Amino acid sequence: MSRYGSENLPYGVFSRPRGERRLGVRLGSSVVDLSVLGGQLAAPSLNALLAAGPAGWAAARAAVTELAAGSPERIPLSEVTLHLPFEVADYTDFYSSEHHARNVSAILRPGEAGLPPHWKHLPIGYHGRSSTVVVSGTPIRRPHGQLGEGVFGPSRRLDVEAEVGFVVGVPGRRLRTTDFAGHVFGITLVNDWSARDIQAWEYRPLGPFLAKSFATSVSPWVVPLSALVGSSSPLQDPQPLDYLLPAGPGFDLRLSVEWNDTRVSAPPFASMYWTAAQQLAHLTSNGASVRTGDLFASGTVSGPARDEVGSFLELTRNGAEPVKLADGSVRGFLEDGDKVTISGTAIGAAGVEIGLGEVTGTVVP
Amino acid sequence: MSRYGSENLPYGVFSRPRGERRLGVRLGSSVVDLSVLGGQLAAPSLNALLAAGPAGWAAARAAVTELAAGSPERIPLSEVTLHLPFEVADYTDFYSSEHHARNVSAILRPGEAGLPPHWKHLPIGYHGRSSTVVVSGTPIRRPHGQLGEGVFGPSRRLDVEAEVGFVVGVPGRRLRTTDFAGHVFGITLVNDWSARDIQAWEYRPLGPFLAKSFATSVSPWVVPLSALVGSSSPLQDPQPLDYLLPAGPGFDLRLSVEWNDTRVSAPPFASMYWTAAQQLAHLTSNGASVRTGDLFASGTVSGPARDEVGSFLELTRNGAEPVKLADGSVRGFLEDGDKVTISGTAIGAAGVEIGLGEVTGTVVP
Repeated sequence: MSRYGSENLPYGVFSRPRGERRLGVRLGSSVVDLSVLGGQLAAPSLNALLAAGPAGWAAARAAVTELAAGSPERIPLSEVTLHLPFEVADYTDFYSSEHHARNVSAILRPGEAGLPPHWKHLPIGYHGRSSTVVVSGTPIRRPHGQLGEGVFGPSRRLDVEAEVGFVVGVPGRRLRTTDFAGHVFGITLVNDWSARDIQAWEYRPLGPFLAKSFATSVSPWVVPLSALVGSSSPLQDPQPLDYLLPAGPGFDLRLSVEWNDTRVSAPPFASMYWTAAQQLAHLTSNGASVRTGDLFASGTVSGPARDEVGSFLELTRNGAEPVKLADGSVRGFLEDGDKVTISGTAIGAAGVEIGLGEVTGTVVP
Repeated sequence: MSRYGSENLPYGVFSRPRGERRLGVRLGSSVVDLSVLGGQLAAPSLNALLAAGPAGWAAARAAVTELAAGSPERIPLSEVTLHLPFEVADYTDFYSSEHHARNVSAILRPGEAGLPPHWKHLPIGYHGRSSTVVVSGTPIRRPHGQLGEGVFGPSRRLDVEAEVGFVVGVPGRRLRTTDFAGHVFGITLVNDWSARDIQAWEYRPLGPFLAKSFATSVSPWVVPLSALVGSSSPLQDPQPLDYLLPAGPGFDLRLSVEWNDTRVSAPPFASMYWTAAQQLAHLTSNGASVRTGDLFASGTVSGPARDEVGSFLELTRNGAEPVKLADGSVRGFLEDGDKVTISGTAIGAAGVEIGLGEVTGTVVP
C-alpha cells in the first residue's frame, strides 16, 4: 500500500521539461498539478499558501483532497523535476535531542561530558544560512575550509544530521506554545550536512559557521500538520519556565538513514526532549519575528540506541568505530560518491501509515 | 560644510506622507528623488541596483552625480520617512576587532583571557537573523529572555555594538579577496543590539542566538564603495593562509557613539584586524553562496583606548565602572528611554570628509 495515498498529499513544487514551476501534491508515485485549482495553489511556490493561515490551509486541503479523489491527471515522478518547495526566509536550527547532545559532548568534549547547564532550561539553537538550503537531490560538493591551524583543504570528516524541519506560514512574534498550529504549516525532512573538522576548529565562541553553511538539504515535500497527529509531550524534568508551557504535541515520526544502499539508523523523533511548539515560543520570546517561509529544524534526531542516531559522528564514534556497509566497505565519515537518504514515516491523522518524503544527496569532490 | 555633498551621495529609500517608496540620495539635509532616472533607480528598494554589478553601479553613480549637480528638487529630510534601504537576504556578523575580542575575553571569560587559538587564523563569524534587521529610528523594545537558571524577564544588561556593515550586490561563491569590489556595493552603519545576560546563559556551544536576534539596526544610507578610498591593510601576524590573501583594503572610517546627548566613544575602523575582503572570502570559501542583499557586518569596532570601544560592556567593564553622561546621570547598561546614535565619517575618494549616515534607536520597555 502506498504511503502517499489520499490521507497524506504532501505539497511540493515541480516542473516538466521546459515547463514553469507549479504546485503539486504527491499521490503514490505521481504528482497531481494543483494549478487548476487557482488562487494560492496556482503560484510557483508554496509561500502564498503558507501565508494564507489555518483557514486557507483547511480550504486548500479540502480542495486538494477532492481533486485527488476524482480522476486527476497523474504525472509520474520520473517525468518531473522537483524544486525547493518554498522560499526560505530565516533558517534556524535547534539542538533538542538529549541523546544527541550527550553523545556529542562525550565524543567531542570528553572533559566536559554531559549536558551544558542550561540545556534542560531552554531549547538551544542558532541561525543557519538560508541561501544554501537546497532541495533533495542537489549534489553536495565537499566543503573546503580550515581543518586546524595552517591547514586548508577539503573536509575529511563530512557528516550528516537527520532532522525534522518545521515550515512557518503565518508571521508572528512573542508566540505562545499554543500558537503552534496557527503559525506552522507543516514539516519537511532535513539533512544538515556538517563538516566536523571545520566545526571543531572554528566554533568557539560564536558557534558553528562554515561547518554547516555550505549546504542544508530538504525534502521536496511538505507534509501539512493536518495530515499528522500529535502524540503525548515528552517528559521534561525540571519543569520548563511558564513561557515554554504547555509543551505542545510531540510527533511520533520514525526516520530512516541510508548510507549508500545500507540502512544504518532509524532515529525516533518521539525521543526528542523539546517540542517544536517550545522551539517556536523560545525563538520569538525575545521579541524576534518569524516570517512566512521561515524554516526551523529540530536538531539532529538521535534515540538512545546506537542504531538510532542521526549523525555519523555518533554512529562511528567520530570515525573510531567505522560501520560496514552492505557492499562490504567500511566508513567512518562520508567519502566522495557516497549517497545519503533520509526518509520517514508516521501514523497519520487518518490512522494509516504515511510517508514523510525523503531527502537525499550525493557527495561530489 | 556638509558631509553630504556631491562627493558622497549615499543611497536610501524614502517616502512622503501617503506616497510610495522611492530611491533617493542624500544631499545636505535633503533627499533627491531618483525615480526620474528610471531603470533600476525607479525601484522601491536598492536590490535591483545592487544586482546590476560594477558597470551598473558606475552608470548609476554618473547619472546620480549629474542629477545632483543640476538643480534637482530637494525634499527636506524632515518631510520624509526613511526605510530599510534593501531587502536583507542572509545576515552575517563577524568578530574582527582584536581589541574587542580581547576585552570581551578578559571581562566575560577571565579564566580563558586572551584570544581563542584560531582567532588570528580566520575571521570568526556567525549567522544572525534577517527578519529583525530594522532601519535606524525603529524603537528597540527591551528583549525578554532567560537571564539565568529559572529567571525569565526583561534583559538587565542591554548593550550596543557599533559596527560597519557591507552590502553584497553580485551573487557568488568561493570568492577571492580580490573579488571584493566586484561583489560588494557599499557600506552602512550597524548597531547590533545585544542582551549580555541572555547571551551569557545561552551561548554555549552554538553561539549567541536570542541575545542578538531581537533587533539589528542599520543606517538608512548605503555609501557606495566608489565614494570611499581604501587605506592600507592591517598588519597581520601570523600571515593568513593563501585563500585570505591579499588582505584587501582597510578603510579609515571614524565612528562615533552617542549615549543620549553624550559622546562616549570614537571607535576607529582602521584598527580592525580582518578586512571585509577577507571576511567575504572566508564566508564563501566552503562553497556557500552570497546573494544580492546579503549584509555582513564587521563585528564590534573597538580601538585600543577606553574611549574607542564599540560596546558598553567594554566601556563600563560589564557595568562595574559606570560612565557619567552629560546630564549627570550614570549608566552601566541601557535604561528604558535611552537613545544611542552611531555615526561615522571618512575622507572620501574626492579627498573631502564625507558622512557615513547614522543609526539611532531608543530603548522602550
